[in-house]
Amino acid sequence: MSNEKMNGAESLVKSLLANGVEVCFTNPGTSEMHFVAALDHVPGMRSILALHETVATGAADGYFRMAGKPASTLLHLGPGLANGLSNLHNAKKAGSGIVNIIGEHASTHIELDAPLTADIEGIARPMSHWVHTSHSAADVGRDAEEAVRASMVAPGQIASLILPSDTAWNDGGVAATGAEMPAPTGFDESGLDRAAELLDGPETLLLLGGAALTESNLETAGRISAKTGCKLLSEWSNARLERGEGRVFINRVPYPIDIALKVLEPFKRIVLVGARAPIGFFAYPGKPAILTSEGTEILPLADKSNDLTAALDALCAATGAQETAPAHVVTAETPEPQSGTINLDNLAACISRAIPQDGIVVDESVTTGRAFSPATKGAKRHTWLNNCGGSIGYAMPAAIGAAVACPDRRVMCLTGDGSAMYSVQSLWTMARENLNIVTLIFANRSYKILRGELTNVGVQNAGPRAMDMLSLDRPALDWVQMAQSMGVQAISVSECEALEAALDDALNAEGPRLIEIML
Amino acid sequence: MSNEKMNGAESLVKSLLANGVEVCFTNPGTSEMHFVAALDHVPGMRSILALHETVATGAADGYFRMAGKPASTLLHLGPGLANGLSNLHNAKKAGSGIVNIIGEHASTHIELDAPLTADIEGIARPMSHWVHTSHSAADVGRDAEEAVRASMVAPGQIASLILPSDTAWNDGGVAATGAEMPAPTGFDESGLDRAAELLDGPETLLLLGGAALTESNLETAGRISAKTGCKLLSEWSNARLERGEGRVFINRVPYPIDIALKVLEPFKRIVLVGARAPIGFFAYPGKPAILTSEGTEILPLADKSNDLTAALDALCAATGAQETAPAHVVTAETPEPQSGTINLDNLAACISRAIPQDGIVVDESVTTGRAFSPATKGAKRHTWLNNCGGSIGYAMPAAIGAAVACPDRRVMCLTGDGSAMYSVQSLWTMARENLNIVTLIFANRSYKILRGELTNVGVQNAGPRAMDMLSLDRPALDWVQMAQSMGVQAISVSECEALEAALDDALNAEGPRLIEIML
Repeated sequence: MSNEKMNGAESLVKSLLANGVEVCFTNPGTSEMHFVAALDHVPGMRSILALHETVATGAADGYFRMAGKPASTLLHLGPGLANGLSNLHNAKKAGSGIVNIIGEHASTHIELDAPLTADIEGIARPMSHWVHTSHSAADVGRDAEEAVRASMVAPGQIASLILPSDTAWNDGGVAATGAEMPAPTGFDESGLDRAAELLDGPETLLLLGGAALTESNLETAGRISAKTGCKLLSEWSNARLERGEGRVFINRVPYPIDIALKVLEPFKRIVLVGARAPIGFFAYPGKPAILTSEGTEILPLADKSNDLTAALDALCAATGAQETAPAHVVTAETPEPQSGTINLDNLAACISRAIPQDGIVVDESVTTGRAFSPATKGAKRHTWLNNCGGSIGYAMPAAIGAAVACPDRRVMCLTGDGSAMYSVQSLWTMARENLNIVTLIFANRSYKILRGELTNVGVQNAGPRAMDMLSLDRPALDWVQMAQSMGVQAISVSECEALEAALDDALNAEGPRLIEIML
Repeated sequence: MSNEKMNGAESLVKSLLANGVEVCFTNPGTSEMHFVAALDHVPGMRSILALHETVATGAADGYFRMAGKPASTLLHLGPGLANGLSNLHNAKKAGSGIVNIIGEHASTHIELDAPLTADIEGIARPMSHWVHTSHSAADVGRDAEEAVRASMVAPGQIASLILPSDTAWNDGGVAATGAEMPAPTGFDESGLDRAAELLDGPETLLLLGGAALTESNLETAGRISAKTGCKLLSEWSNARLERGEGRVFINRVPYPIDIALKVLEPFKRIVLVGARAPIGFFAYPGKPAILTSEGTEILPLADKSNDLTAALDALCAATGAQETAPAHVVTAETPEPQSGTINLDNLAACISRAIPQDGIVVDESVTTGRAFSPATKGAKRHTWLNNCGGSIGYAMPAAIGAAVACPDRRVMCLTGDGSAMYSVQSLWTMARENLNIVTLIFANRSYKILRGELTNVGVQNAGPRAMDMLSLDRPALDWVQMAQSMGVQAISVSECEALEAALDDALNAEGPRLIEIML
C-alpha cells in the first residue's frame, strides 16, 4: 500500500490500475466529478465517454470478451446504473467480468431523499454477483481491489462498487498495489471415465461452451471427435468463438425450437464441457422446454467456472485421442462474388467474403443471421461474439469494447435495425474514439423475429393492431442520416455489388463506417 | 365479473379498460405476444410503440401528469423493465401513477434459467410502490384492477404487475368490471391554527408542491398571500404547474445551492402544503444540505398524499382570506420580437413569445433554462412540467405522453442536447403517432451543467481529460439529420429571427417538429 496523501477518488483510479483495469466506459454526473478529476491526476486510465449507460456497460462486456480482463464503468447514481442494467444482464449471462463504479450521494445526503436518491444496492443486485458500498475514503482502494477480484472469478462476474461522494472527495485514500486474481476451479475428475465411455459412438454429443471454444480447446475437441465419433456442438449463444480457416468448426444448437429439437433428437448420450444442457429460449404452449429427448444421459463434466482446458485435455487423454488428428478442421472456402438484389443467401456469402483476417464479428442479427454460421465456415480466421442474454441492443456497444481491446483488429458489427435502435448512441462513441468498426444494419423495418414468435406461441390470424406493434416502417428509419448525425460515415445498399464495394471500402478505412442493407 | 370464455391476456386488456386505462406504451417481445394479440380482440386500448422502454415509461409519466389517470406500459421481461427504470424513477419522484405490465417466462420455464431469465420482482422493487406476480390466468383480471388501484394512491404510484406468459395464453381469464379508485387522504387539521399564525407576517413562506399547484389552488394561495403577507414558492421541480396570464404566479426554489440558500435565508417561518422542506439536489463539500436557515420553524400542514385543495381551502379560511383578492395575478406581457445571435436572454424571450394558449411546456433545459421561469411569467396560459427525479432523458418521452393525453393542446419540449440523447428514440414515436410536439434542442454541445458542478464540488483547475468527459463536441451532433432519420422535420437556427420563424411554423404545423438551437 502506498501512503502518499490522496483523496478517495485518486486511490480508486490507482487501485484499479494496479489491478490491471486500464479502461473506463463512463457517463459521469455530479457525484462522480472527483473521479473525473482524478483521471487527470493519475495517468494511465483510458476514459471513454458514452451518451447513454447501456453503451458503457455493453462496451465493458465486449472489452472483457476480447481482453480477458475487466474494464470499469463509471455510472451516475441509481438511474445511471439502471440505464446500464440490460447490457449488464447480457454480460452476466455471457460470463463477462465488469467492475461497475457507481457514484452515490454523500453519506449524510442519502437520508434526505433528494430527487436522485434511490436504492442503488437494490438496483445493482439482480444483475451483479458482488455488491458493496464503501464507507470511507480509506476503504475505497481496498474495496476497488476486491471488486476487481470479484469480477475475475471464472468465467467472469459483475462487481458493483458504490462510492458515496464523500468517500471520493475526502482525503485519506490508500491505493491498493495489486492482488492475485482468482484462477478457474478444477473440474470433478470422477466423471472422466464415464464421459469417455459416453462419447464412444456415433449418436453421442460433446456440447461445448465458454472457454472450451478457444482455438486450442476446439482443436482438442476435434481430436476427441475424430477418435470417438462423437459430434460437436456449441451452445446457441457463445460469448466468444474462434472460427475460420485452419480451425475446428463447430455448429451451434439452433434457436428455432422445432429445429433445435430435431437436431438434438438423435443424441442419447451427451457430455457437457462449459455448456449447460440445452433448453428453449422461450417456453411455447404445447412444446417441451428441455430440448434433449427423454432418456438421454447427460453428463456435466465441467462448467464455466472450471478450468475447461484441463477438462478437455483430460478427456482427450481418457479417450486416447492425444495423437489423433482433429476432425472438422476448416479448409479456406471463399464464395464467388455475388450480384443482384440482396437476399439472405447472397448476404451471408458477401459477409463471408468480407471477413478480414483476425476480424472480430459481433453478431446481433437476430432474424437475418441464421444462415451466417454455415456460410462463414470457410472464411478467414476470425472471432465471433453472440448476445448471450437476449436483451437487444448489445452489438454496437460490445463492438466498441472489442475495438478498444483489440486496436489492431477489424470489427464487423452485424445487427438488425430494431436491435440497433436500442443503443443507437453507440455510433457517437465509435466516431469520437475513431474505432475501426463497420456496422451492418439489416433494415427489415420490423421486429421480424416477433412475427414468427406470434405464430410460435399459438396466436393465429394476428390482426392489424398486433402487427402494427411489430412494424418499424411507419416512419422508415434512415440509417445513413442517423449515422451521419453522430459523425459516422454511412451508405445504404440494396444490391450485392454495392454491398461488396462498401464493405471493401469500409474495412480499409480508418474509423467507423455504417452500411445500411435494405432487405 | 364477466364470465365469457377468454384467455388471461384478454382479461388483462378488458380489466384495464374497465378501470379507465386506455393507453399502453409498449415495446413487446415473445412473452407478451398474447397481450399484443389481445389488442385486436378487445377494442378500446390505444397501443403506442416505442423503440426503447425509457420512451414508454417516460411517456406514461407525462400522460399521467396531464390526464390525471394512469397509462399502462407493456415491457419485455427483466431487461425490458430495466430499460424503463430511470424514467420510472422520475415518475416515482413526480408522484405519477403508472401501471407496468411486465411479461415473464411461463412459470415452468423460469427455473430453467434461460438467457432472458432475471429477478423481475427484484428489478421492479426499487422503482415501484407495488409489485405483484400473477399466478394463473384466472387471477390476471383481478390483479390488473388492483394494480390500477395501487397506481391511483395519491399523488400517484408505480404499480408493477408481472405476468408469466402462461397466465396470458391459458383460458380461464376473468375480466374485472371496474373498482372505486382511492381518494387522497385528509390532512391533519390540528396544524391549521398554527399554520395560519405562522404565515402572518412578511418573513414567512408558504411552500407549495404537487396538487397545490393547480390553477384554483394557486388562486387560493394567492388570497392567503394577499391577506397575510406571506411569500409563495414552489419546490424546485414540479410535476405540473399552471402558469401564465390571469393565473397566480409562483417562483421555484432555485437549483444552484448558493442562490437557493440566499433566497430561503430570510424565512424563519415556513408552512408546507404538498411540498417537502427544501434540501440540496446534491451534497457539496463544506455546504449545508438543508437549505433553510437554522432555527426556522417549518410546519408540514399537508403532504402530497393528502387532499391539498381541502388543505389550502381550510388554510384560506383560517387566515380569513376567503374574500381577499389574490396577489401575484399575472398580467399578460409579451416581449418585443428578438433579433441577432441567440443568447440565453433573448432565447427566453423568444420562448415566452411562442408559448401558445393552453400550451404544455415539458422542460428539461438543465442549464439553459434557468431564466425561463421569470421570462415566461406573462406568457399565454400554459402548463409547465419539470423533471422531478433528476434522471436525464425525461423530456421527449414525457412530451409524447402529454400530447397523447391532450390531443387538442400544443406541446413544447425544451431539452439540452445531452439530455435529449438519452431518449432520442422518442422522435420516431412522435413521428409515428403524428403528435403535435415541437422539440427545442439547446445545442451547447456539452454536459454544461457538469462544468459548474466540477467547481461546486471543489475541483480546481480541471485538466483536459476531465473536461473531455463533459464535452459533446467531438463529434458534434447534427440534430437536423438525427430528427429526419426518424421521420421528424427539423431545422437548425442560430439567430433569433430564424428561431421565431421556425417556432411560428412548427407550432402551426400538424405533427412533430424539431428545432436545433445553436448556443
